[in-house]
Amino acid sequence: MTSCNISYDEILSSLFEVAKRAGTTIIHATNTSTSTSTTSTTASTKLNSADLVTETDKAVEKLISTTLLSKYPTFKFMGEETYTPGTALTDAPTFIVDPIDGTTNFVHGHPYVSVSLGFALKRVPVVGVVFNPFTGIMYFATQGSGAWKKVLEPCETEEGKRDWRIRQEKVQLPVREPAPFTGLDGTMVAVEWGSDRSGSNWQTKINTWNRLGRSKEEGGAMVHSARCLGSAALNLCAVAEGHVDIYWEGGCWAWDVCAAWVILTEAGGIMVDGNPPEDGVNGNWDIEITHRKYLAVRAAPNGQREIVKEFWTVIEGRMEYEH
Amino acid sequence: MTSCNISYDEILSSLFEVAKRAGTTIIHATNTSTSTSTTSTTASTKLNSADLVTETDKAVEKLISTTLLSKYPTFKFMGEETYTPGTALTDAPTFIVDPIDGTTNFVHGHPYVSVSLGFALKRVPVVGVVFNPFTGIMYFATQGSGAWKKVLEPCETEEGKRDWRIRQEKVQLPVREPAPFTGLDGTMVAVEWGSDRSGSNWQTKINTWNRLGRSKEEGGAMVHSARCLGSAALNLCAVAEGHVDIYWEGGCWAWDVCAAWVILTEAGGIMVDGNPPEDGVNGNWDIEITHRKYLAVRAAPNGQREIVKEFWTVIEGRMEYEH
Repeated sequence: MTSCNISYDEILSSLFEVAKRAGTTIIHATNTSTSTSTTSTTASTKLNSADLVTETDKAVEKLISTTLLSKYPTFKFMGEETYTPGTALTDAPTFIVDPIDGTTNFVHGHPYVSVSLGFALKRVPVVGVVFNPFTGIMYFATQGSGAWKKVLEPCETEEGKRDWRIRQEKVQLPVREPAPFTGLDGTMVAVEWGSDRSGSNWQTKINTWNRLGRSKEEGGAMVHSARCLGSAALNLCAVAEGHVDIYWEGGCWAWDVCAAWVILTEAGGIMVDGNPPEDGVNGNWDIEITHRKYLAVRAAPNGQREIVKEFWTVIEGRMEYEH
Repeated sequence: MTSCNISYDEILSSLFEVAKRAGTTIIHATNTSTSTSTTSTTASTKLNSADLVTETDKAVEKLISTTLLSKYPTFKFMGEETYTPGTALTDAPTFIVDPIDGTTNFVHGHPYVSVSLGFALKRVPVVGVVFNPFTGIMYFATQGSGAWKKVLEPCETEEGKRDWRIRQEKVQLPVREPAPFTGLDGTMVAVEWGSDRSGSNWQTKINTWNRLGRSKEEGGAMVHSARCLGSAALNLCAVAEGHVDIYWEGGCWAWDVCAAWVILTEAGGIMVDGNPPEDGVNGNWDIEITHRKYLAVRAAPNGQREIVKEFWTVIEGRMEYEH
């Protein structure tokens, strides 16, 4: 697929290469001991004590931006660790990158971590690669060509350099034939708590989960369960795979969702407003990747829009985040 | 290790074999389509609409109990799918088994699922195997010999039969040198919501998570994050590995915890009461595996008991479950 003389396949190849190099850095950073204060999984904080960043986050973003901008010098780059608050996403071809999505997991050694490499054109995500170097699972998609996953494993080249080889060939997403939606009470919902833990955003999340999970006898929606996994990009890929039905999120950023957005929508999923309709009727079905309040729903032969509308009715409160 | 002429190593070998056969059944059940009502991942309900069971749960338990009781005909067997409410665990040698821990994940195709095979003597867990056939990770321990994990992958024998081979040799748990605890605000906590979603048990869980996650400015403990993963046995193994710090649980059963209990304690972790001290002072540090309210804490050079005491202070309410 091409647009404006940009080859999505070529960009996908470039993202594969940089994802593998980033993955190598991440798994070897984690293999160092945490017993000294100078190692790469030692965290410092940003917004507050739950908003973590490590030297590895910064080093991996540097690796990614240097590699991509030397190959595509006219493109823009938006990355979590170098973002300046208030910077707007433009129509220009832009790489939108989270070097480590799931930094809290990374700091604790929990293997649900990803490199999230997205590419947007006219502010629409068109190429995405999400790679978990601990499981070796690499999700990817380009606009119009479907969503896929393959499994890699670490290896060494003949020259003794660290590399990755295929362990399982690519398969198309969703991996199982999706079932129709029959109502919220049959769904498994991913939610995340983020680092914004006070005021109305926190209360909206707590009260909504209380409503979602509670029994119908006590006025709840009695979903099958909630999953809190700790990586927005991997949550979206789980929805694309079809093994999480719904992912509700407030507070994450364009770099958390850009890459997986392509994967989700190419797998037949949708991404809509994480807030309910302001007027109670007309919901926002067409959001920007910078929206920060998201509701992702898996592919389904029918019932997708109905499940969104049902979900919107159980949200208690509204989430508000600055850009 | 032996006791009463029972060789733990021999039992461990038996549990390895049956775990692999059970794992084969589970991954091939999942590979069938979910589009018809007769396939093995189709769920029916037990207690309520979130308490799921599939034909695979029942078939795998039958496979496990038949295999183990034919080899050890004098031993007792307690399994999730054949348990009669009110049956007491005795001092006799007893296999305590959950054929599929994480049935909700299994039904949805989410690959956080395990076969949980425990063995207790005088009501103390002494041998445990927890196997996730989707990731191939097998955790295991016998009393006095440490806790371990190895990684398997599916293969075929020369005769064309389905089997498993080693992909990564065993490593001892915890995998990283454990850090000292410095307070709840540096921890990652696993919580589960279970299928009991009303009354005081549900409110205790919601209110406690609200307190655990909330900012300190608003009176909370501001933990790094919560993880809700959907398998008690795998959560306990994550604590044993050291990449989840604390797991707080109410409502699960002996078969959910027996196998992983050995793995956790052999890795240096502890398992104590999930309810705070009734008198506000003297907590229950020595619980039975049938207790149903648990607090698991990872190994640490120091601060383990202090983190338990701090956790007990933030629990809002009490959990009560029948035996």
